[in-house]
Amino acid sequence: MLMVSLDNAQATPLVEQIVDAVRSQIDDRILRAGMKMPPIRKLAESQQVSRFTVVEAYDRLVALGYLRSRRGSGFYVAPRREGGEGRQLASTDRAVDVAWMMRQALDGGADQIKASAGWLPPDWLDEDGLRRHLRSLSRRPDARLTAYGTAQGYLPLRQQLQVKLAEFGIGAAPHQIVLTEGATRALDILARHLVKPGDTVLVDDPGYFNFFGNLRLQGAILVGVPRKVDGPDVEQLEALLAHHKPRVFFTHSVLHNPTGANLSPGVAFRILQLAEKHDFLVIEDDTYADFHPHATTRLANLDQLNRVIFVGSFSKTLSGSLRVGFLAARPDLAAELTDVKTLTSVASSEFNEQLVYQMLTDGHYRKYLDRLQGRLAQATDECLRMIERIGLEVYLEPKGGVFVWARPPGFEDVAALASAAAAQNIMLAPGKVFRPQMQPSPWLRFNVAFATVPAVERFLGETLGGCPT
Amino acid sequence: MLMVSLDNAQATPLVEQIVDAVRSQIDDRILRAGMKMPPIRKLAESQQVSRFTVVEAYDRLVALGYLRSRRGSGFYVAPRREGGEGRQLASTDRAVDVAWMMRQALDGGADQIKASAGWLPPDWLDEDGLRRHLRSLSRRPDARLTAYGTAQGYLPLRQQLQVKLAEFGIGAAPHQIVLTEGATRALDILARHLVKPGDTVLVDDPGYFNFFGNLRLQGAILVGVPRKVDGPDVEQLEALLAHHKPRVFFTHSVLHNPTGANLSPGVAFRILQLAEKHDFLVIEDDTYADFHPHATTRLANLDQLNRVIFVGSFSKTLSGSLRVGFLAARPDLAAELTDVKTLTSVASSEFNEQLVYQMLTDGHYRKYLDRLQGRLAQATDECLRMIERIGLEVYLEPKGGVFVWARPPGFEDVAALASAAAAQNIMLAPGKVFRPQMQPSPWLRFNVAFATVPAVERFLGETLGGCPT
Repeated sequence: MLMVSLDNAQATPLVEQIVDAVRSQIDDRILRAGMKMPPIRKLAESQQVSRFTVVEAYDRLVALGYLRSRRGSGFYVAPRREGGEGRQLASTDRAVDVAWMMRQALDGGADQIKASAGWLPPDWLDEDGLRRHLRSLSRRPDARLTAYGTAQGYLPLRQQLQVKLAEFGIGAAPHQIVLTEGATRALDILARHLVKPGDTVLVDDPGYFNFFGNLRLQGAILVGVPRKVDGPDVEQLEALLAHHKPRVFFTHSVLHNPTGANLSPGVAFRILQLAEKHDFLVIEDDTYADFHPHATTRLANLDQLNRVIFVGSFSKTLSGSLRVGFLAARPDLAAELTDVKTLTSVASSEFNEQLVYQMLTDGHYRKYLDRLQGRLAQATDECLRMIERIGLEVYLEPKGGVFVWARPPGFEDVAALASAAAAQNIMLAPGKVFRPQMQPSPWLRFNVAFATVPAVERFLGETLGGCPT
Repeated sequence: MLMVSLDNAQATPLVEQIVDAVRSQIDDRILRAGMKMPPIRKLAESQQVSRFTVVEAYDRLVALGYLRSRRGSGFYVAPRREGGEGRQLASTDRAVDVAWMMRQALDGGADQIKASAGWLPPDWLDEDGLRRHLRSLSRRPDARLTAYGTAQGYLPLRQQLQVKLAEFGIGAAPHQIVLTEGATRALDILARHLVKPGDTVLVDDPGYFNFFGNLRLQGAILVGVPRKVDGPDVEQLEALLAHHKPRVFFTHSVLHNPTGANLSPGVAFRILQLAEKHDFLVIEDDTYADFHPHATTRLANLDQLNRVIFVGSFSKTLSGSLRVGFLAARPDLAAELTDVKTLTSVASSEFNEQLVYQMLTDGHYRKYLDRLQGRLAQATDECLRMIERIGLEVYLEPKGGVFVWARPPGFEDVAALASAAAAQNIMLAPGKVFRPQMQPSPWLRFNVAFATVPAVERFLGETLGGCPT
């Protein structure tokens, strides 16, 4: 039986009062492992506090390893481990659920159908171009092949990125750009520097799941901001900000992963207004930028790297094997983040940065992207037609990129559907993996370059009782 | 005026009682910024506790940002910042001192004399071999250039490392080996998984400074184990273990950085006995392994990856620009560490791993190492002669590798000497940067491949009043 006595007059916030009461009753074994916690609504009513307060308290207790949430069922006291150990490991456990899924995607054999992968098939990429640049790099007398690179990364590539960002309307001098081992490492370095254990971080719901795992590893408390077709739901964001003090909002503006949606200018402006008012930083992940055929809105375009830190990558268009990504930030932040990079990996691979630089500057990257965008548009059409034949509902028709977000009618959660697909070696990513607390979701992410094969349509048609052609 | 009343009967350890007392008196502004804390010996006597207890309490307070230590002068109350912020940032500040030094070394211009760098000049390495392998990789039909690698890293390289580790007498199956973006990232992944904020970590004193910065970033409390010529001082280690509960001891067995010393079998055995008795893991950094011409003792050789996690790298012998390193661990730990790698960087560069694999297996790596070791032995002789001419005392004559550890007579600290050298664009690493709390040190690390140039001898000869030739 949970006993809480809250005191509005106390300096300690109500959320912390609940957290403390629950923790001490679990520590004292008044609440025992497996016991069900009062439902959020009920506790909120009995204590005369808002549901937000209870949600945040429960979230923190989950992050601390005191509670576990069970899908559709509620919150339970977590199994006890000796010492303080269990509590800290628990958050890693949850982070690792995500890592496990990622590992499945990376390590899946050649016969696995990666119908929901986050990247393109290798043979869609410019392998010949890469081979040609390898040979040319091997002959350049000025190639630096053996020495450590500089802390911030290969200067000519940073200068090239300055030009690229200027095309997006973002002003960033080379000293504001830090090269990293892919976008995920850029996000990792940001989390290391900006997020302390126990900090609240706002994330897209749904959003990039591997980074949710990274944030959990860092001890962050994740609060999801629902996505709409024009970007994060700013009404909900404002309501959340009445109850949370986030340090950072991590979001994805262009060809959002997983929904494929773009940010509208009006929503971008409101987010930046709220960031100013509530004093948080925004990390804008732009991993899929080069798949978008047209100019579109970015937060960093409005804000000019004042409150926004911009993250990009060449893993999707050039090579996931090279591990070249970058971040762009305010000069003072860029310097600090360079130091964090140095402490965590000395330097990134200048060797690979030289290769990417050569590929960007020899003039054919733009033409290559045009072809790729054309091929993706065609695959997207095919995927949308397949989805229509099977009878799934599409979230939106994406303006580019690799993702289609769709749901079968009548499902509350598609986790079991994804498991059945996995048994046939078809990798389907169920919506719950993109949600910050792995809440149930009826949505599926399709990768248009992989999903339009007969096996996927057959599986979905048969399983959902549709009429596959 | 500090007021502490300790109670042996309390469940709270004495160290924590001191920490709590000091914290609350700083929070309550009884102790104010800039005030000097009682000397360790005095507080220990007045409270009738061991000096270890006070040292640990002060160390924690420094890590928490409440105190600052001033070289040769003692501990002072740190400047206050608003909120809890300052305390957390303070540990990053100290981590970043180290990053700053590392950045200087990486970014120093072509005219900087890197007399104490941690790596060889690029032109000592096998650049031609690398160019040749680049071309051959560009032609291999089976080269994977664009796709993401697997989570654990390129399997053929892991199989090759199994063979290499077997030569060191270490049994490690490929599934026990995780490839990483250099040894520093291997250490970073280990710190992420094994070290929680507030954990005590034992480190070599002196030892690898960049990793000290990394551990501080992770919120660890560093306790230095003094090095002797045959490895860590096991008497001191045992004394420290009476007062600390470390989770991990991070040490360096072969051609220790910075002293160049090797581990003796007897010391290795005692360390492992103590690890068993006090239940901690040992991280054995073997970055300089391939510079050692002879078979030598390693902890992982005795322990066979039970309590020891082994870290290696190809940055020193093949290329710092490729960023290929690895760790080897117990199977369960290797799986967990692979997940942490995935959450922090998705995968390492399979592209670069293929290159390193080709270079290791085409048969000339062994011959190349023989030549390199011969050249290093000659440079070491020259460096020792130079040091003798200047009148410095040598810690030991190293059996291989790149480092000579030496001190000028009559110095308690050589930080000012290193600053004077920096003004002449000569990078000399003063001993204090290798010490976990940046304590004063009379020692200097020389890199034999860089230091034997007239400018270094002239500077040291003139500054120290010796007789340069």
